[in-house]
Parts: sequence; structure tokens; C-alpha cells
Amino acid sequence: MSARILIVDDLFPNVKLLETKLSLEYFDVLAAMNGPDAISICEKGLCDLVLLDVMMPGMDGFEVCRRLKRNPTTAHLPVVMVTALDQPSDRLRGLDAGADDFLTKPIDDTALFARVRNLVRLKAVTDELRDRALASREFGIGDPLALAAAGDGQNASILLVEDRKNSAERLSAALNQHHRVTVVADPHDAMVLATEGDFELTLVSLDLQGFDGLRLCSQVLSLDRTRTMPVMMIAEENDKARVIRGLEFGVHDYLMRPVDRNELVARVRTQVRRSRFSDTLRGAVQASMEMAVTDGLTGLHNRRYLDSHLAVLFDDAALRHRAVSMLMLDIDRFKSINDTYGHEAGDEVLRAFADRIRLHTRVVDIVARYGGEEVVIILPDAEPEAAHVIAERIRERIEAVPFLIDQETREIHVTVSIGVACRHVDDKGPADMLKRADLALYRAKSSGRNRVEAEAA
Amino acid sequence: MSARILIVDDLFPNVKLLETKLSLEYFDVLAAMNGPDAISICEKGLCDLVLLDVMMPGMDGFEVCRRLKRNPTTAHLPVVMVTALDQPSDRLRGLDAGADDFLTKPIDDTALFARVRNLVRLKAVTDELRDRALASREFGIGDPLALAAAGDGQNASILLVEDRKNSAERLSAALNQHHRVTVVADPHDAMVLATEGDFELTLVSLDLQGFDGLRLCSQVLSLDRTRTMPVMMIAEENDKARVIRGLEFGVHDYLMRPVDRNELVARVRTQVRRSRFSDTLRGAVQASMEMAVTDGLTGLHNRRYLDSHLAVLFDDAALRHRAVSMLMLDIDRFKSINDTYGHEAGDEVLRAFADRIRLHTRVVDIVARYGGEEVVIILPDAEPEAAHVIAERIRERIEAVPFLIDQETREIHVTVSIGVACRHVDDKGPADMLKRADLALYRAKSSGRNRVEAEAA
Repeated sequence: MSARILIVDDLFPNVKLLETKLSLEYFDVLAAMNGPDAISICEKGLCDLVLLDVMMPGMDGFEVCRRLKRNPTTAHLPVVMVTALDQPSDRLRGLDAGADDFLTKPIDDTALFARVRNLVRLKAVTDELRDRALASREFGIGDPLALAAAGDGQNASILLVEDRKNSAERLSAALNQHHRVTVVADPHDAMVLATEGDFELTLVSLDLQGFDGLRLCSQVLSLDRTRTMPVMMIAEENDKARVIRGLEFGVHDYLMRPVDRNELVARVRTQVRRSRFSDTLRGAVQASMEMAVTDGLTGLHNRRYLDSHLAVLFDDAALRHRAVSMLMLDIDRFKSINDTYGHEAGDEVLRAFADRIRLHTRVVDIVARYGGEEVVIILPDAEPEAAHVIAERIRERIEAVPFLIDQETREIHVTVSIGVACRHVDDKGPADMLKRADLALYRAKSSGRNRVEAEAA
Repeated sequence: MSARILIVDDLFPNVKLLETKLSLEYFDVLAAMNGPDAISICEKGLCDLVLLDVMMPGMDGFEVCRRLKRNPTTAHLPVVMVTALDQPSDRLRGLDAGADDFLTKPIDDTALFARVRNLVRLKAVTDELRDRALASREFGIGDPLALAAAGDGQNASILLVEDRKNSAERLSAALNQHHRVTVVADPHDAMVLATEGDFELTLVSLDLQGFDGLRLCSQVLSLDRTRTMPVMMIAEENDKARVIRGLEFGVHDYLMRPVDRNELVARVRTQVRRSRFSDTLRGAVQASMEMAVTDGLTGLHNRRYLDSHLAVLFDDAALRHRAVSMLMLDIDRFKSINDTYGHEAGDEVLRAFADRIRLHTRVVDIVARYGGEEVVIILPDAEPEAAHVIAERIRERIEAVPFLIDQETREIHVTVSIGVACRHVDDKGPADMLKRADLALYRAKSSGRNRVEAEAA
């Protein structure tokens, strides 16, 4: 994918060299000569990836990286630190600051481009998600970015695919301090575990006996159930070609043997954080879409949901010549509860009423708040008699146990009236059934309340 | 990106050959020996891309492609047709059937892999979007997939970057029959136009005088404003290397010179359709998120939106030592409107009431339906006197012109009572202000209705 790369280095020749290389690869290049400028460019959303020099006067690269990763607006940007320092402790400082990778000068161009392309492609996939999640922030439905950026990347469930006993033991000992590791030696067992288990990351040795570990990586990355899970490779030092191949098709990160345990821990944490970041965004988008069809007070479905699904269920029942029934419920004398105990008590009653109804309905039933104190329940495949039994059971359960209000300090006796109707062969649409349920409810009310009435025969 | 490739061919050796090649590139390969099996695998969501042989007994490849592209469940799957037939008319039939590309046997491996990788990467980016949009279908908020798959890919606004006069004329003549084409010769002007205009597709000659057209493609694909726009390249026959380079970084399609005008039209239509497909999904996700904060009846914001934004505005005003005011409006004797004219008339009045309020508020104000016939308006930066003037104006405009109901055949005289409150320095939170507005509204009601009352001094 094409992308805008920000080069951050205080030395102009370094900037120029990288710029030329990246530009030849058709990347769009921007440059910043110090940390604060770099942060400002990132905050403005002008780049897709940061190549960050460590040694700079003023704010050093570690600090720039930490700030970018801590800020919800920039936390999603991949950061690759570039440095002449080659101590494991330096690498580790970079990774601990949240960097996605740490490359040592002189830079190996193949490795650089493979890494940059890999990170840019992975980012392109989540950008769409991030854009949607930003809308949910705009609408005031929580701030998923802040929530997502706050994760610590600890305590993940990890699948380690490694058939060398010593190595498996060393790696899992290191990881078990922060995570829960499951070790598996056989690649086929690994695939089954990956799809059926609930892992957050898979770590694959590329040197399995008689099996190409890369193939396993590729499968995990292409199956529906596992494709959003981060995958990391462990490779022999002389196996750079396969590492680059893996990066090309979307493997998230790698470690070279002998594996430095601190680096292992740091890289795994970064991947777990990144993946949870996406999961949080995904959840936020999903949640705000669910809100559109949910009643805020009771958590039941709202009328918008009822209207669209009732039509579908009704047509489906007509097509399959199956029954569908409907209950219309209305709390008796609800206005007097509000007037006597206040609106908040009324709300408490509505919530408890909804909870109690939920206990007595099936997963396939639709329970929706229809308005004020009215609830509609759709019962697919329920014949009139069955619908009546369910209605009577609900009526009885509402009457039997008083409702607790004012932080459970007071009891209110509540009853409900229910109208029952079913689909008729000659109904033009669900509105006909709805009208009959409404009339039945009216009769239940006018003949004394706290009763179930079926539609007129 | 790793992906699951479905090979469709009735000849086993052909399947085997392609399978071996793709498997070596770490793709997951599935096979189907006939059209119906292929369609069934696609409908089950088991693959990411289809390599489709044209000549098969029974259902031929053209028909399989047409069916896949017409079905909302499978329309998003990239289809590459593969055949020994090499007549322009065959190519065209494939592209007309909706195929994303048409490769001729013997297959050039480099071209095949470049194409497959390119299509798989582009798909990975929109998969996330599609998953979210599917949720909106599940919730019963429309069916964006069906809507999106129905597009015809016509009448697009196209930017053609070409500095050869003859070629520009020929290409735009062909395209103008179905679209609107803007020709630009200078690549810098092109970039400005692409970002500032409202184009749906950019077509770039790779042979511009003194400028590498690929660079322009890359820029269009990396800038925020244009990165979702399809980009196509036009290349000389001997320039395959740059074409493959372009596909690698995300260019959507290409044409070789001399450009066949029918192929041009077919490929452009495919890209426009694909891009509109994504736009429709994006719009559907956005719309269902907006629903979560919108009142279904009046189109005003709902209470969920009010609650979250009121808190933000309130804290912000406190921080900046600025005023913020609130109006609480309640339609007078609304219950008697419902009782006299029916619920539908009541709903009509509520909608018209909302529309009239909108006319007299600013973009920065928040107007939300608070419950039944109550509306709350938040006025940022409004001092008490200004808030009072606005409230009085709204009251007057509601009273002045009667509301039309029953398809505008009847008039109802409606009035509104309004309570006004402002943030106090010692308020603990917005609830304090809300309570004062509620009390002021109560006084407006009890002192005769159709009036504005400010909070007690």
C-alpha cells in the first residue's frame, strides 16, 4: 500500500538518504528534524508510519515514541526506531517505549522495506475501523480511542507452536510471567487449537520438524475465525528470506534465535496491545450500532428494531405457513406509580419489569419497549394457546413478587395487563395483528386489569 | 496478505498446477470442479478470491461470475477469469460479467501473483467495513449489502491525467458516453484537482512527459482526502514492470496501450461499482451509528446524546468561565391533542414542532427530545438575557402559525411553555441546571401556559 512516511532525524544527510530510498519505492515522504515537530505532524494525521531516530538533542526518540503511543490520537501509528546503537538494552528501551520495531544502522534495505510495507498494510486494514470508531466518539457515545490506547498488553492467552522441548520451556517460562502460554508441538494440532481455542496471539517456530512453520502462519492469517489474531515468527538467524516472506503476507512480527527473553516479552506486549486496540474499536462501533436498536432505560429492543424485525418474522411465518404470536403488555396504573413515588421510582419499576420479562422469554422471542410503559413480545412459531400460557405466566410472575424501589428499601405491588394476538391467514401485514393485540389489551384493561385477554375469536 | 484462493476449473491438471503455484506463495488453496460448487463455497464465505476458468461444461465461467457479482453475499469477492481464449470479445465478456481481471493462458506467474496479492490486499481493507455493515443488517437497520451490490457503476466523475492530446481525446470520448471526464495534462494540477474536486476515479498515464505517473498514483492513494478513490494506470505494452509495481502499492487496475475502448469502459465501470459498494457500506455504518443518538420520530437528538454532550458543554463552559443556557420546552395540553385527534396527529404535531424549533436555533445549539412532548435546547455561550429572547421567539413562532395535520387538511392551534435556566458558578453539574429549568417550566405551566419563565433569581 502506498503511504506517507515520516522520517524523524536531527541530521539532514540521514533524512536525505532515507527520503531518497523510500521515494524510489513510491512512498510519500515527510521529514521532521526534532521530536516536537514530529509529534505535531502525527497529531495532525499527516502520516501513516514513523521512522524515528533515537539520538536527538532535546527530546530523544524514546520519549517521542512514548508520547505518540500514549496519546489516543496517535497511538495507532506504527513507529520503527532507527539507530546506530546496537546494545540489547537499547533495543529493549525502544520496544518498551512502544515501538513496533527497532532497526540498526546501517539499515538493510530489504528488511526496512519489508517491515515498512508490512506495517503500512496492517494499518490500512484497521484505518477503516478507526474512522468508524471516531464517529462514535463524535456522537458522544464514549471515547473508544482513549479506552483502546490505555491497554497494558498483559495477561494474554498465547499459543506457542514449538517442537524443540528446550526452546519451548525457555520461551514459555519467560512469557508465563505476564501471560498464559499453551505449548503445542504438532502443527496440525496447533491449527485446531488456534481455531477452537480463545487465544490472543500465536507464536510459531519456523523450524518445525518436517513442516514449514510459515504455512501455519499463513493459515492462521487467512481463516475467518483467526485472521485478526496477531501472529509472530521465531526464526534462525540465517533465515531472513522466510522472515521477509512472512512479513509480506501479513505476519505481525518476528524474533531471531537465540531469542532474547526481554525482547520477546516486549514484542509480545506490543502485539497484544495493538490487537486489543482494534478489538476495542470494533466493540465500540458494534456497541454504538446496537444502541440504535436498544431502549436506553430498559435495555430491551426499541420500537425501531421491533418494526423492522416484526415485518421480517411476519413474512417469514406467512411463507412457511407457521404461526407467530404477539403479546402486548401494559403496566397497570403506571401513572400513579410515577405520581406517588416519583419518576425515578417509575424508571426502576420499568427496568425491573423488563428484567422479569426477559426471564420468561426465549432467545428467539423479540422483546421490545413499545412506548412509555408498554412492551411488545413477538413469539415466533407460537400457536395461540402457547402464547396465552406464556402471557399468563408472565402476568402471574409480575403479580407474585413485589418490585423493590429506592435502592431496594421499598416494595411496590405491580400488575400487568396483556393482550394476545396471532397472525391470521388473511392479514395484510403485521399492523393487523398489532391492532388486534391492542384491542385485546384494551379489553384486559377495561375488564379489571391484571389479566390476559386473547383477541376476539 | 495471506488469503484463501478458490480455483475453479473442470480439468484436474489445471487445478493441480495452479494449486501448486499458489501454495508455494503461501496462499491457502481450495478447488471446485464446476460452477455450482464454486458458488456454494463462495456463499459460505470460505474464500477471499476466485480464479475462474471460462470454459466449463454446464455453467460456464461467465455465468458463474455474473451470479457471484449479482448476489449481495458474494459481490465483494474479487474474481479473476483465466482462459485460453484470447479474443478481445472474450476479455470483454468476462469484464462485462463483472470480473475484476481477465488473464490469458499460459499464465505469466509474476502477473498472476501481483494481481492476486493486489486484489487480496484491497479486499482486506474493506472486509472490516463489510463486517460492520453486516451488523447493521443483523440489527434490521436496512440491508446495505443488497443496496450496495445493486449499483450500475455509471455516471461517475472521472479525472484523466494524460498529456498526449490524441490519446486524451480518444479516451475521454469513450468514457464520456457513460461518465463525465475532466482531462488534465500536468501532474501537479492533477494532484490539486484530485484533492479538491469531487472525482470518483482517477486514470493516470504512466508516460507523462518528464514525470513518473506512478508517483502520482502513489500520492492519490496515500492522501487522506483521496485514499479511498480508485486509481487506474495506462501503460505501454513494454512497461509491465511498472504496472506490477503499481499493483504492489495498491493501484486498483490498469490498461495497456493501445487501449481497447470497450475494455476501458468495462474496467472503469467495475472500479466505480466497487468503490461505490464500499461507500454505501461506509454510509450504512455511519447512519446506524447516528441512529443511536437520534430520536426516530422527530429527527432531533435523543436523550442519550443530550446526556453525554450536556456534560461536555457544561464542563467546558466552567473551564472557560463562559455562560451556557438551557431551555426546557413542553407542548401545552399535548394529551388533549392525542385524545381529540388521535396518536398520528399527535406525532405530526411533534414532528412539525421539532422542525419549527430547528429554524430558530443555531448549529452550535443542541436540540434534543427529552421525553414525550418535552424538548431541551442547550445554548452554548448564551447569557440569561439572550436565552430568554430566543425562548420568547420560539414561543411566539409556535403560537403564531397553526400546525397542519391529517395531510395538511386540518389546522391545530398549538402553544408551548418554556423554562429557562443558566449555569451557576456553584453548580455541581448539569443536573442542577436541568432541575432549575424544570422548575421554571413548572411555573410557566402553572401560571397559565404559553409563556416563558426564567429560573428564580
